[in-house]
Amino acid sequence: MSNELSVKHLLGIKYLKESDIQLIFETADHFKEVINRSIKKVPSLRDITIANIFFENSTRTKLSFELAEKRLSADVINFSASQSSVKKGETLIDTVSNILSMKVDMVVMRHPNPGAGIFLSKHVEASIINAGDGAHEHPTQALLDSYSIREKLGGVSGKNVVIVGDILHSRVALSNIFALKLQGANVKVCGPKTLIPKHIESLGVEVETNLKKALNWCDVANMLRIQNERLDISYFPTTREYTQQFGVNKKLLNELDKEIVIMHPGPINRGVEITSDVADSKQSIILDQVENGVAIRMAVIYLLASKIKQ
Amino acid sequence: MSNELSVKHLLGIKYLKESDIQLIFETADHFKEVINRSIKKVPSLRDITIANIFFENSTRTKLSFELAEKRLSADVINFSASQSSVKKGETLIDTVSNILSMKVDMVVMRHPNPGAGIFLSKHVEASIINAGDGAHEHPTQALLDSYSIREKLGGVSGKNVVIVGDILHSRVALSNIFALKLQGANVKVCGPKTLIPKHIESLGVEVETNLKKALNWCDVANMLRIQNERLDISYFPTTREYTQQFGVNKKLLNELDKEIVIMHPGPINRGVEITSDVADSKQSIILDQVENGVAIRMAVIYLLASKIKQ
Amino acid sequence: MSNELSVKHLLGIKYLKESDIQLIFETADHFKEVINRSIKKVPSLRDITIANIFFENSTRTKLSFELAEKRLSADVINFSASQSSVKKGETLIDTVSNILSMKVDMVVMRHPNPGAGIFLSKHVEASIINAGDGAHEHPTQALLDSYSIREKLGGVSGKNVVIVGDILHSRVALSNIFALKLQGANVKVCGPKTLIPKHIESLGVEVETNLKKALNWCDVANMLRIQNERLDISYFPTTREYTQQFGVNKKLLNELDKEIVIMHPGPINRGVEITSDVADSKQSIILDQVENGVAIRMAVIYLLASKIKQ
Repeated sequence: MSNELSVKHLLGIKYLKESDIQLIFETADHFKEVINRSIKKVPSLRDITIANIFFENSTRTKLSFELAEKRLSADVINFSASQSSVKKGETLIDTVSNILSMKVDMVVMRHPNPGAGIFLSKHVEASIINAGDGAHEHPTQALLDSYSIREKLGGVSGKNVVIVGDILHSRVALSNIFALKLQGANVKVCGPKTLIPKHIESLGVEVETNLKKALNWCDVANMLRIQNERLDISYFPTTREYTQQFGVNKKLLNELDKEIVIMHPGPINRGVEITSDVADSKQSIILDQVENGVAIRMAVIYLLASKIKQ
Repeated sequence: MSNELSVKHLLGIKYLKESDIQLIFETADHFKEVINRSIKKVPSLRDITIANIFFENSTRTKLSFELAEKRLSADVINFSASQSSVKKGETLIDTVSNILSMKVDMVVMRHPNPGAGIFLSKHVEASIINAGDGAHEHPTQALLDSYSIREKLGGVSGKNVVIVGDILHSRVALSNIFALKLQGANVKVCGPKTLIPKHIESLGVEVETNLKKALNWCDVANMLRIQNERLDISYFPTTREYTQQFGVNKKLLNELDKEIVIMHPGPINRGVEITSDVADSKQSIILDQVENGVAIRMAVIYLLASKIKQ
Repeated sequence: MSNELSVKHLLGIKYLKESDIQLIFETADHFKEVINRSIKKVPSLRDITIANIFFENSTRTKLSFELAEKRLSADVINFSASQSSVKKGETLIDTVSNILSMKVDMVVMRHPNPGAGIFLSKHVEASIINAGDGAHEHPTQALLDSYSIREKLGGVSGKNVVIVGDILHSRVALSNIFALKLQGANVKVCGPKTLIPKHIESLGVEVETNLKKALNWCDVANMLRIQNERLDISYFPTTREYTQQFGVNKKLLNELDKEIVIMHPGPINRGVEITSDVADSKQSIILDQVENGVAIRMAVIYLLASKIKQ
C-alpha cells in the first residue's frame, strides 16, 4: 500500500480512492494507540501552521480539529466569520489569501456554500480540509463513522448500513454514502419521502421508507440529527410525527431479530431521533465516534502535511 | 502532612478538609516563587488536557485559569456555551461527555445552576473544578482570598473577617464562609437585611447590619461586588442607599480605631462598594488577590492532576 | 546603530526616532528570512506573557499579532471587550491592572479612544503596543507599509508616496505620514475635501484633490479603505461618487506615465477603492503587506521584550 494520499486536499470523500481511506485508518490506529498510552502530544508538525476558518458555528467539529492539531504540535490560528472582515463585505478569496499570506500551510474550513473548499483549492497554495460545505460533504465525519464501524465490527466491506433521517439536506449522509460504497458496504437510506433526494439510487443506494424493515436488514443504523427548523416547514412531518415514524426507542430495538449498532453524529435531540435508553445503551457507539474523530483528524492532517513538506 | 488532596474534584470548599487547604497554600507558595523568578512555565502537566467549559460569561476567572493551565504546560481547550450545541438543546451530560470522549482529563466549569459540578462529577470520569455554580460555591475564589489574608497577616486562624454586601446571592460569600471557618477565623456578614439569608447563623457566622461597627471589629473587610440588576428590584435598597449605608470611603476608614485590610473579588464598581481612594490605597490587597489567583489555580490543578496520573 | 529601541512602548510613530525604524526593519529582515526557511518558531520569548486586549473588533491585526507572538514562543492570552467586565462598568485601568496582576509582560491593545495606550502606559508597568487607538495612530501598520515599500523599491527616502482616501478619520494615514516623513519620503494626500483634515500641511504633507495628478506624481499609492458608514453622512460623497473620483482601475493605471506601486491596508472593498484587476495585478503589493506584517510585529515585540528583560 502506498504511504501517501492520492490527493493534496481533503475536499470530499468523492475525490478519494479506497486505498486513501485505508491509509487514513491505519494512521489513525497509530495515533489512537499513542493517545491511549496517555501520550497526549507528538512533535510531528512543529513547523506547520494551521488556520481553522469557520464561516458557520460548530462546537464539536472545531474542538475536535483543534485538539488534533495541538496533539500534533502544530501552531493553530482560529478565525470565525462572526468576528471578521467577512461582515465588511470582503470576498472569500481575499479573506483566505490574507490569512495565507501570513505563511499558513493548511486551512480547515467550514462554509455554508457547497463547493466553497473546492473553489478555494483552485485559488490558493495551502492544503484545504473541508470541515463541512453546506449540504455537500463533511468528509472527516464520514471517515470517523466508517472507522468506528470497522472498530466495532472488524470491517466495513459487506456490512449493511442504513442512514436514517433528513438525507436531502445532510452533508453527513452524502459523505457517508460515498465512503461506505467505496469500501464495499451495502447502503440504504430511510426517512420521510420529502427528505429523500430524487435519483439517490444513482449513487448505488436503496430507499426504504419503513424504519422497522430497514433496521431488521442492517448491521448498523446511523441516526442523523433532525434540524428542527427544517421540520417547521409545512410539507414536512412535525417533530412528533417524525419521532413516531423514524425515531428509535429501546422497545423497537428489542423487537428486532438481532442486535444492531447505533450511531449518531451528534448533538443528539434525546427523545427525537433516539431515546435516552438507546443513546446510553451498549449498542450505541456514539461516544466512540467522538473519540475516534480526534484520531481520524490527526491522521488526515498528518498525511496531508507530509505532502506539503516534500 | 499528607502530600495529596482528600478529594478527586474541587466542587466546593464544603468538601475540603483543613489539611487540603494547607496543602493547596503550600503548593501555591512554590508556584508563586517560581513565577516571581520570572520562570513563566513549568513542564509539570505536559500530558494533561484541560477543558474550560463556561456556561456563563466570565473574564477574570477564565483568564486566570487559562494562564494557570498554560504555565503548567497543560493543553487547553476552551468551550463557551454561547458558541455551542447547548443552544441546540443538548443536555449538560451530553455536551460534557462529548468533550471528554476526546480524552480530556480535567474540566473547569462555570454554570448558572447550583450543584451543576456535583451532578457532573457523578456521571463522568474526569476531574471537575467548579469555577462558580450559580449562588452556590466558587471555591478557588475563596482559596485565593484566604491565601491573600495569610500572606498579608501571617495567617487566617483567629483573624476577624467581615464579608460586606449581597450575601444572599453570592457564591463568593458562601465559599469564603466555609473556608474561613474551617481555618479558625471569626466571621461576620454585613449588608441590607433583604440580602442576608435567614438562618445564616447556623454556619457559625454573626450578622452585623451596622457597617462601622463591623469594620471596627474586623481585621479584614471583604467587600463583595453589588450586582446592579439585583438592586433594581423594588424591595432592595437603591444603589445610592446601598453606598450610603454599606460603601467604604477613605473618611470612614480614617475614623476607625485601627488599620484594616480591604479586599474585593472584582470587578469593582468604583464609588459604589468602595471609593477609588480606598481601592488604590495601601490597605487594599485587591491586585494581590488577582495575582494570587493564578498561583492558587496552578496549585489546585497540579494537585488534582497528580491524583489522575496515579 | 544602536541595537535597542529608544522607547519602552510602541504608542505611535510620533514617538520613534529614525534609527528605531531602521532597527525594527533589520530585525524584521532576520525574522522574515527565518520564516522563509520554513522555521516557523523561534524560542526567543519563552518566558514572556503577552495579553492581546481588543476593545474593538479586528480580524487581521489580531491574527497577525497572535501569529507573531506564537512564532516567538511567547505565552498569549486574548481578551475581547465584548466578553468582558468592561460591559459591567469597569474602568480601563482596572481591567488592564487586573490582567497585569497575573504577571503579564506586554499588552497589545486596540481601543476606540485616541490616546488610550498613552494613558495606560503612564499607569501600568507592562510594555504597551498600540494596535490602533481611534483615529489617532496605528504604528505597526505604518511600519509594515514602509517596510513593504523598502522591500519593493529598495528604500523609502526620497520616494513619492500618495495616501488616497479618508485622511480625516484614518489612523493608518496619520501613522504613515509620520513614518514616511521621518524616513525622508515626499508625501501627498488625496481625497474628498470633506475627508482631509484642516492644517494637514503643518505635517509637511501636500494636498492634491485630483487623483490622476497625484498618481502621475507618485511612486507608490496607498489606497485607504473607505468606511461605508462614513459615506452615508450627507455632506460626504456617495460611494459611487467616491469611486468615480478616487477609485483606481486598470485603465487609469495604464494611462499613467510610469508603473506605480499599489498598496491597501485591507480589507479591500473590491470595485470601490480599487478594482479587482488592480488588486490582483503585479503592481499590487497588498499580500506582501500582510506577510510583512507578521515579521514587523515579531520584530517590535522582540525588541520591546529585550528591554523588559534588562
